[in-house]
Amino acid sequence: MLTGFVLLCSNRSDFLWPSKRSIFLLGLVPVIGVVVFMLGGVEFSSPFPELPRSAPADQMLKLLPEERLKDLFTFDGIWLFPKNQCKCEHQESYNFQDAYGQRELPAVKARRRVEFEHFQRREGLPRPPPLLAQPNLPFGYPVHGVEVMPLHTVPIPGLQFEGPEAPIYEVTLTASLGTLNTLADIPDSVVQGRGQKQLTISTSNRKLLNFILQHVTYTSAVYQHHRVDVVSLESKSSVAKFPVTIRYPVIPKLYDPGPERKLRDLVTIATKTFLRPHKLMTMLRSIREYYPDLTVIVADDSKEPLKINDNHVEYYTMPFGKGWFAGRNLAVSQVTTKYVLWVDDDFLFSHDTKIEVLVDVLEKTELDVVGGSVLGNVFQFKLLLEKSQNGDCLHRRPGSFRPLDGFPRCVVTSGVVNFFLAHTERLQRVGFDPRLQRVAHSEFFIDGLGSLLVGSCPEVVIGHQARSPVADPELATLEKTYSAFRTNTKDQIQFKLALHYFKNHLQCST
Amino acid sequence: MLTGFVLLCSNRSDFLWPSKRSIFLLGLVPVIGVVVFMLGGVEFSSPFPELPRSAPADQMLKLLPEERLKDLFTFDGIWLFPKNQCKCEHQESYNFQDAYGQRELPAVKARRRVEFEHFQRREGLPRPPPLLAQPNLPFGYPVHGVEVMPLHTVPIPGLQFEGPEAPIYEVTLTASLGTLNTLADIPDSVVQGRGQKQLTISTSNRKLLNFILQHVTYTSAVYQHHRVDVVSLESKSSVAKFPVTIRYPVIPKLYDPGPERKLRDLVTIATKTFLRPHKLMTMLRSIREYYPDLTVIVADDSKEPLKINDNHVEYYTMPFGKGWFAGRNLAVSQVTTKYVLWVDDDFLFSHDTKIEVLVDVLEKTELDVVGGSVLGNVFQFKLLLEKSQNGDCLHRRPGSFRPLDGFPRCVVTSGVVNFFLAHTERLQRVGFDPRLQRVAHSEFFIDGLGSLLVGSCPEVVIGHQARSPVADPELATLEKTYSAFRTNTKDQIQFKLALHYFKNHLQCST
Repeated sequence: MLTGFVLLCSNRSDFLWPSKRSIFLLGLVPVIGVVVFMLGGVEFSSPFPELPRSAPADQMLKLLPEERLKDLFTFDGIWLFPKNQCKCEHQESYNFQDAYGQRELPAVKARRRVEFEHFQRREGLPRPPPLLAQPNLPFGYPVHGVEVMPLHTVPIPGLQFEGPEAPIYEVTLTASLGTLNTLADIPDSVVQGRGQKQLTISTSNRKLLNFILQHVTYTSAVYQHHRVDVVSLESKSSVAKFPVTIRYPVIPKLYDPGPERKLRDLVTIATKTFLRPHKLMTMLRSIREYYPDLTVIVADDSKEPLKINDNHVEYYTMPFGKGWFAGRNLAVSQVTTKYVLWVDDDFLFSHDTKIEVLVDVLEKTELDVVGGSVLGNVFQFKLLLEKSQNGDCLHRRPGSFRPLDGFPRCVVTSGVVNFFLAHTERLQRVGFDPRLQRVAHSEFFIDGLGSLLVGSCPEVVIGHQARSPVADPELATLEKTYSAFRTNTKDQIQFKLALHYFKNHLQCST
Repeated sequence: MLTGFVLLCSNRSDFLWPSKRSIFLLGLVPVIGVVVFMLGGVEFSSPFPELPRSAPADQMLKLLPEERLKDLFTFDGIWLFPKNQCKCEHQESYNFQDAYGQRELPAVKARRRVEFEHFQRREGLPRPPPLLAQPNLPFGYPVHGVEVMPLHTVPIPGLQFEGPEAPIYEVTLTASLGTLNTLADIPDSVVQGRGQKQLTISTSNRKLLNFILQHVTYTSAVYQHHRVDVVSLESKSSVAKFPVTIRYPVIPKLYDPGPERKLRDLVTIATKTFLRPHKLMTMLRSIREYYPDLTVIVADDSKEPLKINDNHVEYYTMPFGKGWFAGRNLAVSQVTTKYVLWVDDDFLFSHDTKIEVLVDVLEKTELDVVGGSVLGNVFQFKLLLEKSQNGDCLHRRPGSFRPLDGFPRCVVTSGVVNFFLAHTERLQRVGFDPRLQRVAHSEFFIDGLGSLLVGSCPEVVIGHQARSPVADPELATLEKTYSAFRTNTKDQIQFKLALHYFKNHLQCST
């Protein structure tokens, strides 16, 4: 049998295989003549040299041209295919490093690289290239799904040997993060290395060999989290490799809805207020018209504390002007029910503000967050991410991905308005970054990308208190101060762009 | 070649394979005579029927007796091997359902089952049984590591066909959560189903076939999170299956330590106080002796707010007696630095309270939390979990698992004292459950099991303010009220046991 290797290398920086510049060993591939495939960047027009006429079939071995590829894998105008360098080419795009001054930028880049490497180290990134199975391996083995808790033992299913007949069979299993054994009751002459990282089976009895293999066990030897051990199974020159994942299962954090499933035991309302006590009280009164006993958590970073006469309001004070997201994070950190309903302090509950509908959606689907609409304004946006070595590219587009299964008038998206019901545990896990002190909204959904499945049901509507001048001079002063804080100043925009650059390791957004 | 199936069934409830009662297809296993392996529960004394003398080798096919198994896989006295039903057999054990009254228990069990099923549905549990590869498959394919973001496309590495020669080769790839394509520029007569869930390649040219396979791509078609698609690759009767994981990468949440890496920009101190203002102020003064400018966040649920004259203290008030863990969660929710140092309000900083040492440990290792010691008392405990159908068994043992790499005087464990430095982002992700209002400690580490890697460096010491009677009558009254709240009453113990039963789906603990 002819054997050979085919090398796939990328020699341009634009085009990227998932394993970057790693070389794929393609094993047993018959090679006739010299055919070297150069994936030369994004241009595929003439990727390989002229071949002699005596092998006409080889002329068929070409790849699709670039424009065709872009067609195939483009979504919402963005090419969602691996690449070395993503770009933000749009009328409205932000290049995040512009938020830093020229002089400080090199130092910022260096610090970001250090922090990013620490993050990667702790997350086990970058992941090793995919584990490839060779053809015609004489083994059965588990490709996917073997998991073990740290220090625990599991049987490994599916191991078997089906190679050619031989006078003696010798099969070796090797692990690195754990030890191997077998439940088979066999003398040490047949099985060596029980309880070690390498287990060797030597026997002339094929049935015995397979019996031992069927009962092989893996023991996680070191207390660690989130690791993947690659176990190899070999005999003569054949090697099979398979993964064993070492991790704890998710610890449940359930909430008891109580024997009567009262809404009060299922949902807590949370809000944050700042220098708008009149609006807050108006909102509270509107809640009480429809929901007299739901707990309302209020985080307040105003100058003076309020006195709220309501048995079901929990009131918290913060340092003055500590901030918008700090207050959101505070309020959410205090919730003791399964769901939390976020509302802004200037909203207005109405007959259409049916919390029960939102609860029903979260109870019956896999959503973590479901938003409604404010005054009928449907606000939804999608987030699309392109990974890249020097910072990712984030794209925001209006609208939704698809309808929500079981709720045809609802959709799945990435971001919604500030009126939403969420699984408390999931919301707390993502949180609202207290570094965002003033105007911020999408930052929460960006932090939640991949962690929160977000939906929108526009038929659940909340009202909004109109901006009207207040008569009371004290309140008017407050409102003026409020507006000053609320202005999205140049400094604040710069701060948020810098935060995206450093914190989220982003390059740009459109 | 003889072929047959060997069935492995568990017919006793105690012994459990990871795939529970699923049947393993072991593919090509020569079967001579009738050998049926019955894994009969925990007793392995005589698991199978008498075999005729004409096959002496078969008599070797037995499994280790139970006592031997228990020896092999026991850690800290607990058998860490899969089982249907775990038990808590220890002088000091809690059976959590005892926290409920006889009458309410059936309804509680029913509610817990409903909530648990909702949780499982959202987590994609239980996982399907492991994916097994058959021996002698004529394919190369990726066993592990192919990941794609929702709606994105990735090339699938390692696909190849190495089966017997044939006049025509027909190979089919099938996906369910995505669509398939190939980068090869090939007419539709050769490749059908481009952009569909099933891709079929028909050609007499083996080289062409493998060229097409090398360039197969997978496109995630539906916007979903955390899914595993099983893609199959078949030709004639050979079928290979491999997983493609659909998920977002972890979104980084980095913190800029600033150009000078000042401790103030790296660490925030957090604490919670209740009716002990004198102790809090003493603690604050002790901090300022050594760390004059570190931000200290104070969450206070006392009756009267305090006035703290310190530019670097952030002070928060809460509803009276809202609670211990609520206050902890609040304080931590406000942190804007990479690390947070937790201290109790009656601790005392000393010359040995070297925060820098703890920072060094977290900077250089994979720990999420590192504790010190209080007054030299080293408090460490390990948590071991046994999974079980009707609730898990949790075991707590004093001590540690192993030394910490690079820090020989530190160890890895599961729980420590209330003096620890933590990665803010990781700590916020686990959080302190605000349902725990009074005495609580290990509940935090239980919630963090598998999410937080915890270490202990006892050489970093903090002091503790002694309990001494106070002269001031007001303070004395406060202290009396405080002690009343602090008593671990029977009701509170019952509440916490009930919480473990419902929230964490636990059966018992030792």
